Amino acid sequence: MQTSSSTGLIALDWGTSSLRAYRFDKQGKVVDKRALPWGIMNLPPAENGADTINADSPDAGFRRALQAACGDWLREAPGTPLIAAGMVGSKQGWREAPYLDVPLAVSNIGKSLTTVDTGLGTPLHIVSGLLERSVLPNVIRGEETQVAGILDQLKVEDILIGLPGTHSKWVHVTGRRITHFDTFMTGEMYAALSNHTILGRTMQRDGVPDDDAFLRGAGVAKTSDGRAGMLSNIFSSRTLGLTGELSPRAQSDYLSGLLIGHEIAALLALADGRLQARIALIGDDMLCQRYRQVLALYGVTQVEIAEAATEHGLWKLAEHAGLIA
Amino acid sequence: MQTSSSTGLIALDWGTSSLRAYRFDKQGKVVDKRALPWGIMNLPPAENGADTINADSPDAGFRRALQAACGDWLREAPGTPLIAAGMVGSKQGWREAPYLDVPLAVSNIGKSLTTVDTGLGTPLHIVSGLLERSVLPNVIRGEETQVAGILDQLKVEDILIGLPGTHSKWVHVTGRRITHFDTFMTGEMYAALSNHTILGRTMQRDGVPDDDAFLRGAGVAKTSDGRAGMLSNIFSSRTLGLTGELSPRAQSDYLSGLLIGHEIAALLALADGRLQARIALIGDDMLCQRYRQVLALYGVTQVEIAEAATEHGLWKLAEHAGLIA
Repeated sequence: MQTSSSTGLIALDWGTSSLRAYRFDKQGKVVDKRALPWGIMNLPPAENGADTINADSPDAGFRRALQAACGDWLREAPGTPLIAAGMVGSKQGWREAPYLDVPLAVSNIGKSLTTVDTGLGTPLHIVSGLLERSVLPNVIRGEETQVAGILDQLKVEDILIGLPGTHSKWVHVTGRRITHFDTFMTGEMYAALSNHTILGRTMQRDGVPDDDAFLRGAGVAKTSDGRAGMLSNIFSSRTLGLTGELSPRAQSDYLSGLLIGHEIAALLALADGRLQARIALIGDDMLCQRYRQVLALYGVTQVEIAEAATEHGLWKLAEHAGLIA
Repeated sequence: MQTSSSTGLIALDWGTSSLRAYRFDKQGKVVDKRALPWGIMNLPPAENGADTINADSPDAGFRRALQAACGDWLREAPGTPLIAAGMVGSKQGWREAPYLDVPLAVSNIGKSLTTVDTGLGTPLHIVSGLLERSVLPNVIRGEETQVAGILDQLKVEDILIGLPGTHSKWVHVTGRRITHFDTFMTGEMYAALSNHTILGRTMQRDGVPDDDAFLRGAGVAKTSDGRAGMLSNIFSSRTLGLTGELSPRAQSDYLSGLLIGHEIAALLALADGRLQARIALIGDDMLCQRYRQVLALYGVTQVEIAEAATEHGLWKLAEHAGLIA
């Protein structure tokens, strides 16, 4: 594919295990994109001969990844502004982009980018994560960019945004300010329980979704049995198997539903049963569908699923930062 | 040590990863005991030459373990009754001892033993586990024997017995009947989170207990932050580290406290805030001390710690079974 001088921004969604690159035209339309395996914990090794990057530099792996992601785009359109969000800005990333304190206006996120020299003639601007200080502090890194994207896409000022995944995040936005967010370790908990506890031993995972088992699990947290809490309820994935009431094939979806049900029940408890009027979900499509099902089960029915929030957010933050003419 | 004809019972606490053997005299006093690594998932291999057990038999590994545990005791006192409790009676054990339904009188447990031929001139009597049928069924196997032991030791009719461990069990006894029990996967959850999630990555575990961190975690479930539930609260083990409020050394005890606190909070919620008047704990001594601390934090102060419940229980069940003259 030919790149052209119409390139307006190159943006990176740079996480722990993957790197996504987007080339925008000057009007903010994505005209090219790539997915590479070069997450910050999996940077590309030095190549013999052709490699012109100083391999001794602590930046070398990051520079090689950046080169692979967009070196050709930059050669075609020298000086194009570069922006990145995600774990690339963490302590383990290329350069630490210090957390910004919540509450804050979404438009301020783009005004506090951290810059790193790339050796490619244009610096990389890294988006900061957010920190909410409280008795139990909370952090996000990467999701702030998706939030900025959704606000722009939906043209809303007040919304509750759910970002399900390894760590599920729920971000409260009021008057285009991020006022509060919560983290639930739902995805990682599911993986740890399925792969490293007795619950996994009786599961047969064949990849065929079992919606009935999922919803059965999801409903537990709202019954009187739910009062026993997640630490107790999860054991039923095994005992329902022992009594022949839940097949080995149904157990993983049941457990997944059980965890998500507890997440939504807790989210409602924190909000005294009333969530913000408008709710959007962003993330893996099937996971978002499942969260929507569980929300409906708990009486929350007005939920939309947003798309492409990351690239929209990267563009928007670059605008706020004044990187785009 | 010389065994003698005064042997009245040989009893086994036979779990997944270990095998404990007790030799009782005719008055019910333990006169010898042994711990072997031959749990049902780790049975001894065939020995060349000396092994007289048919290695092709599915029983062979169990027979070898039994021989190692008490072959000499049985040679000295042929025909001594043999009893065993624990996972040896599970589907993966030597012979499945089917679950007995709860509620039931404790004195009935010993009347439903499952017998297996040992080839040693005396059969092995295996104690059944218990099953509580309900929307979320519950099972125990091994703990029923400890409950029988505690009731006999404490001479009580009504008590709540806590058995903390990999799976923490809480058994309600009224009028010497087991009426209800709950399971919390607290110990296994702690191991899975520490070893297989991001929470473990920032922990430094040096084995020195940090009581302050433990109690700090234990208190979370009773604060307003506790409403976010365990799936959310556990993330604070990481974020308090990020903000410098919890050292890497303190994180594992903090997480342990956090989980146990949620267990006790749920136990209280299930009982509408009022637990049975008398409470006993049985298990690893340090763990029982910690549970007692957390119970006190939640306002439950009359808690005793019982000892040697397994061997007492095995003797008592053998009595109920009529195995002892």
